[in-house]
Amino acid sequence: MLRGWRGLGVIRSASPGTRFPQYTRGYAAGLPELTKDRYSHVKRGNFATLEQNHLKFFTDLLGENRVVSNPSDCQAYNVDWIRSVRGYSNCVLKPRTTQEVSEILAFCNRHRLAVCPQGGNTGLVGGSVPVFDEIIVNTGLMNKILSIDEISGVLVCEAGCVLETLDDRLAEKDLMMPLDLGAKGSCHIGGNISTNAGGLRLLRYGNLHGSVLGLEAVKADGEIMDLLSTLKKDNTGFHLKHLFIGSEGTLGLVTKIAIQCPPKPKATNVSFLGLQTFENVLETFQLARKELGEILSSFELIDALSLDIVTGHLGLKSPIQDFPFYVLVETQGSNATHDEDKMNRFLEIAMKTGTVEDGTVTNEDSKIKAIWALRESITEGLLRDGYVFKYDLSLPIKEFYGIVTEFRKRIGEDAVRICGYGHVGDGNIHLNISTKEFSQDILKRIEPFVYEHTSQLRGSVSAEHGIGFRKPKYVHYSKTEPAINLMKDIKRIMDPNGILNPYKVLPS
Amino acid sequence: MLRGWRGLGVIRSASPGTRFPQYTRGYAAGLPELTKDRYSHVKRGNFATLEQNHLKFFTDLLGENRVVSNPSDCQAYNVDWIRSVRGYSNCVLKPRTTQEVSEILAFCNRHRLAVCPQGGNTGLVGGSVPVFDEIIVNTGLMNKILSIDEISGVLVCEAGCVLETLDDRLAEKDLMMPLDLGAKGSCHIGGNISTNAGGLRLLRYGNLHGSVLGLEAVKADGEIMDLLSTLKKDNTGFHLKHLFIGSEGTLGLVTKIAIQCPPKPKATNVSFLGLQTFENVLETFQLARKELGEILSSFELIDALSLDIVTGHLGLKSPIQDFPFYVLVETQGSNATHDEDKMNRFLEIAMKTGTVEDGTVTNEDSKIKAIWALRESITEGLLRDGYVFKYDLSLPIKEFYGIVTEFRKRIGEDAVRICGYGHVGDGNIHLNISTKEFSQDILKRIEPFVYEHTSQLRGSVSAEHGIGFRKPKYVHYSKTEPAINLMKDIKRIMDPNGILNPYKVLPS
Repeated sequence: MLRGWRGLGVIRSASPGTRFPQYTRGYAAGLPELTKDRYSHVKRGNFATLEQNHLKFFTDLLGENRVVSNPSDCQAYNVDWIRSVRGYSNCVLKPRTTQEVSEILAFCNRHRLAVCPQGGNTGLVGGSVPVFDEIIVNTGLMNKILSIDEISGVLVCEAGCVLETLDDRLAEKDLMMPLDLGAKGSCHIGGNISTNAGGLRLLRYGNLHGSVLGLEAVKADGEIMDLLSTLKKDNTGFHLKHLFIGSEGTLGLVTKIAIQCPPKPKATNVSFLGLQTFENVLETFQLARKELGEILSSFELIDALSLDIVTGHLGLKSPIQDFPFYVLVETQGSNATHDEDKMNRFLEIAMKTGTVEDGTVTNEDSKIKAIWALRESITEGLLRDGYVFKYDLSLPIKEFYGIVTEFRKRIGEDAVRICGYGHVGDGNIHLNISTKEFSQDILKRIEPFVYEHTSQLRGSVSAEHGIGFRKPKYVHYSKTEPAINLMKDIKRIMDPNGILNPYKVLPS
Repeated sequence: MLRGWRGLGVIRSASPGTRFPQYTRGYAAGLPELTKDRYSHVKRGNFATLEQNHLKFFTDLLGENRVVSNPSDCQAYNVDWIRSVRGYSNCVLKPRTTQEVSEILAFCNRHRLAVCPQGGNTGLVGGSVPVFDEIIVNTGLMNKILSIDEISGVLVCEAGCVLETLDDRLAEKDLMMPLDLGAKGSCHIGGNISTNAGGLRLLRYGNLHGSVLGLEAVKADGEIMDLLSTLKKDNTGFHLKHLFIGSEGTLGLVTKIAIQCPPKPKATNVSFLGLQTFENVLETFQLARKELGEILSSFELIDALSLDIVTGHLGLKSPIQDFPFYVLVETQGSNATHDEDKMNRFLEIAMKTGTVEDGTVTNEDSKIKAIWALRESITEGLLRDGYVFKYDLSLPIKEFYGIVTEFRKRIGEDAVRICGYGHVGDGNIHLNISTKEFSQDILKRIEPFVYEHTSQLRGSVSAEHGIGFRKPKYVHYSKTEPAINLMKDIKRIMDPNGILNPYKVLPS
């Protein structure tokens, strides 16, 4: 007898009227302080300042419409979407081709003009906006799909394609993107590659180092690196493409991508479960891996205060009663009957053993979306609290949630909210501490402790968000000095003038 | 009515007495010519020559037993196992620790002594033996498993662990290695990483860039690069580990590895099918992807002349009648009933539509091994023909087999055998042309045509074997000049004296 269980296909309250928020900019009110003021210890590099003759070169190359130089028009490109940093660039360039990118970078390199590459500007560590007055090269107009090979499953496209658009186009050919993340409606695939985005289904479809087959990037001096292989196997020399995956635009500007796309699953099942303790979460994860095997595509944790964000601020409805912890378990597979069998068996055991006390499960598209909205809207909803101190940590799975509890002890009532959610399957937690507004005092009580704690557990101080502007001085908590020195050596040979995304990634 | 079909669990003739050859050295008779003579255009670099005081340093460091300097004892380390190249090193070192490797390399770098890193010496492009008198650093004694985490599935081990040994040890904990290849009984995981080995199940478990979580390597100057993360997500700076994956020991000597291991499948099913045409092979592959979905773990092609090698030279028995083409289709999954269902449905459709004319399928371990032996023994059996010109190409899947036919036209009766087999699922064919003995004339009729043809189809001139000694001058067929220049720049900063595996990978 499964008390409280609603059975396959029944979902309580993802009713009509449930709002699915779009991933939009600027929920946080007002503009953040200029980065140069808030982080006044960071000094502008010895770069040239934009002059009229520079603008003339860009306008000659791109035409007037693709050069934005009016300060008010530039503002949206100067601020990150979580409103944590703000640059003051007066030049946004919108190339359409690799050749244009090449000419822009060659010119900037010659004239020592610093450049900030920008995709969908959905980054969370201040990597995609200028720190000072860097010229913004925005890939928004490089948004062509170049080919989709139905037999091999290989997509080739330009860097500015929006992730969700790619996924929609692939769906027409029974394929899917091997990555998915909350920002999919805005983020560019070029930015995904440049930040080595992980996301919601890494557990099933692997990371980008595994699925990106090739790419094209432009080096700081304008040289085009054609590494756009579409082959699954190619052992001809050093595997250079990986230098551009996750280096956040500091080694080159990614212009094209070839990526291996898995078949679109014939069946998706999603369950949303309520649990009393984090130990129950871990037991349920072990059970899911055992029973769901190769079709387990996501195992996401949401704690009570994280769910409260989306039910409170955004008016979404939870399909089950209140619990300290929730998990979203998803399967994607090729046979609906087999997959449903597996999911049912998993749920039966979880309920029988008592690790799960309540839950709902569905294979209906609209209900699946409603459940996913609970998870995917957290980042956005959080901004309604005020300012958010965001940490994205890899930790040993057993110690995964302990850091949330630790911070509740350390900061307590001085924060609006201290919550944790994330990818249990990847050992990746998003720790968020929201306050009414930015506070140096709170910052000092969080950092560097959060990094020291993570380092002691041999975790990563940035699991998937990257380093960007806000974390270079913490890289050493996850990387050794020889490794950092080698990074600097590589930067030096690939961008000797340091024009590409300066002040980011590498510690000074 | 499925004519000729033997049904699940029935296999005809993998009878007792079938021999499963071990992957052993030296089937080819005699020793090959010295590399310095056969490839006399390659000149020895300006490196120091081994002196007594060098040997004294090594003996002081490692003890007498771990320094091999007697020429006859060194011979096995100087020759590759397919007997295609031979160096004349009089110094083989067998470190046990990373610290020892570091001291060896620091010394060699200081004294300009060239070094050839060596694992199991199962490479196929002459990458793992010296070209001249390079000092051989063999990882055979660095063979400790450091940890296996049953919850996360992460294995950490030293570079000299044999692949099959790792797999056996993981099996005790219901895990498996994410790669498998014919040489598994001899090859070292460090060599697998250094050559970015692909193998038989890449289709299901992905490539090493995706599954290697971290590694430790020693740079040419002896500096230890600790990149031994065990985390699935870690976006803290450039992703340096990928420089060591597939660079064949030219940028550093890999000493430790952390790798993500999937759960051992609860069910494995293997079918061995006979087909009339290559078009039938492609149709069957498409069908397998559709019906077997996420559990399809291998789809291997064997042409008639390839099967003839193992039935003829090695006395193995084929379980089905003769066909122009055979495919081996394997599933690995978490539910025996579901998996068998899927395999049966796939086979029923394949037989009904007539793409497959005969076949056998099994889920019994001994029979699975017997079928796999047919595929895995080809490389070894081929050596019985005499000398083998081996090509390992990635090609668009539709043109995959055309190159075999092309060479039969070009070379015909002057070869003992021209055959093709390989990984259809990865677009990777092994083209082999065997002759009684090495022949410059035949070589000229094969190369550079084989590379030009591959390049025209935008394929890879080395899909998984690497570049090693024998292919640097062909890298440009798959890589552009800017890419090769960047490789050279990276080599220069990581190994300024060029002591690590010289004459390999990079074109001069």
